[in-house]
Amino acid sequence: MEVIKIFCPATIANLSCGFDVLGVCLDSVGDEMIIEKRAEKGIRIKEIIGADLPLAVEENVAGVAGLALLEKLQPDFGFDITIYKNIKAGSGIGSSAASAAGAVYGINALCGYPLTNLELIEYAMQGEALASGAAHADNVAPALLGGFAFIRSYEPLDIIAIEAPEELYATVIHPQIELKTKDSRSVLKQTVPLRKAVAQCGNLGGLVSGLFLKDYELIGRSLHDEFVEPMRSLLIPNFDKLKQAAYDNGALGGGISGAGPSMFALSRGREVAERVAAAMKEVVANADYENEIHISAINPMGIKELK
Amino acid sequence: MEVIKIFCPATIANLSCGFDVLGVCLDSVGDEMIIEKRAEKGIRIKEIIGADLPLAVEENVAGVAGLALLEKLQPDFGFDITIYKNIKAGSGIGSSAASAAGAVYGINALCGYPLTNLELIEYAMQGEALASGAAHADNVAPALLGGFAFIRSYEPLDIIAIEAPEELYATVIHPQIELKTKDSRSVLKQTVPLRKAVAQCGNLGGLVSGLFLKDYELIGRSLHDEFVEPMRSLLIPNFDKLKQAAYDNGALGGGISGAGPSMFALSRGREVAERVAAAMKEVVANADYENEIHISAINPMGIKELK
Repeated sequence: MEVIKIFCPATIANLSCGFDVLGVCLDSVGDEMIIEKRAEKGIRIKEIIGADLPLAVEENVAGVAGLALLEKLQPDFGFDITIYKNIKAGSGIGSSAASAAGAVYGINALCGYPLTNLELIEYAMQGEALASGAAHADNVAPALLGGFAFIRSYEPLDIIAIEAPEELYATVIHPQIELKTKDSRSVLKQTVPLRKAVAQCGNLGGLVSGLFLKDYELIGRSLHDEFVEPMRSLLIPNFDKLKQAAYDNGALGGGISGAGPSMFALSRGREVAERVAAAMKEVVANADYENEIHISAINPMGIKELK
Repeated sequence: MEVIKIFCPATIANLSCGFDVLGVCLDSVGDEMIIEKRAEKGIRIKEIIGADLPLAVEENVAGVAGLALLEKLQPDFGFDITIYKNIKAGSGIGSSAASAAGAVYGINALCGYPLTNLELIEYAMQGEALASGAAHADNVAPALLGGFAFIRSYEPLDIIAIEAPEELYATVIHPQIELKTKDSRSVLKQTVPLRKAVAQCGNLGGLVSGLFLKDYELIGRSLHDEFVEPMRSLLIPNFDKLKQAAYDNGALGGGISGAGPSMFALSRGREVAERVAAAMKEVVANADYENEIHISAINPMGIKELK
């Protein structure tokens, strides 16, 4: 194989009570990347279409993730990368993760798949470290594995792929305001009351059980975040109204996507997800900023090759 | 049915990273109870064999749990209860829960099973409230449901039964020292660092996933408690040595049972659980207090009728 064209999906990290440990892969939102072998070793970011992002390899998340993988694989050839960005930077649905995961997936493919997608995660995380200062896995893992990805531990890295119940759909609204990751982080409290920590554990265990049991009601009952949402949601315009509209229209539950400003709701069935999207649209009808709304099934495969 | 004889199993609550949310039912350790219909309404604790516990109905956990259920069922007859205690009070393996769960199970049976075992939990919890001051469910739920019982929430009460992997065995050591629940509680910190709360969530999600996937290694990797064990284990003599001996002999992991002083280890297969028991015995060979060691499969059914 000399060239590969791939779809690099958007992802929701910090999934409610799964703050810092759970992410999920979307199906109908994502970037495309073309990765080509070339004689000269190393990586070149040939072109980025749709976003104003650095082409310098060491300043680009795809470049940094790719270089980390080259260190490991040591191929005697190099790669040209072209990125078609559809996921807006700073939207909170894994824009940098899509590029980082895409780069390592494509390079691994062109090297004859020496590593599994699970093994690729740690290299993709290097791209995340550049993007956000923290090598978190809860976007790149679901992008590479599909479905839900649960991060048990970082040291050592221990990731569990959990299949998504088939009828689960996400509605994501991206209010196009600027929300700096630094601000999103600064509202986090560094300690939590034991009582709230236990409540979070209860909901998290409920959510994980609900996913394994394919029990949509249990998934819905478990979608509460005690750690972050109470503070961070204050930075997102209309958050409470959007969430209420989602519940009122049949959503199982929802929360902040990643570090925001996007907000997501999960629903059983596409029809409900569409109704939720319409209700969200109504909430922001008079907003003085743009809102982008996505409706997506859960992507069971993660990154996929486009023929 | 005029009389029922039942086996009321011991249980491990606060199961490592499942502090306050996860319990499991044992198979080879438990009390027996005989519950008989009688003409006169109400409950009489006829006899307690094997322990010095109050016979006055309102001071007895079985009595209080039973009365709570009678309020609901309003039968036009009453019950005599005889308890054969094998589980030592204060051992940390659900002695009071066995009696409370047994009482409601037996009364429900003699009334023709109007409630499910899941529905009985809230009445059994009233016995726990008498015993420990807190109406916790993580002993009575596994006693009534069998396997693992996960408490997602108390308000409303939301409990998930999780089947135990078949080859899972518990080794429990009960150092017969007095450990007051008050002391066990007073060492708990009322806030936890966010970092530790996230680590606990990671391990809890790993443990729950491991149970559903029947992945013994994942269960083992997840058995770490950040909230309680670091402090509470200091109250249990030889805790670290016992835990190390368990690991050294092939256990998947372990922790404090309930609020202590019992300590448990989980292993894959009876043979390993027996080896762990032998190693624990060696650790306490020269102790100046008695130690009782149990080896048990996980009880998949909970309370069962004895013919």
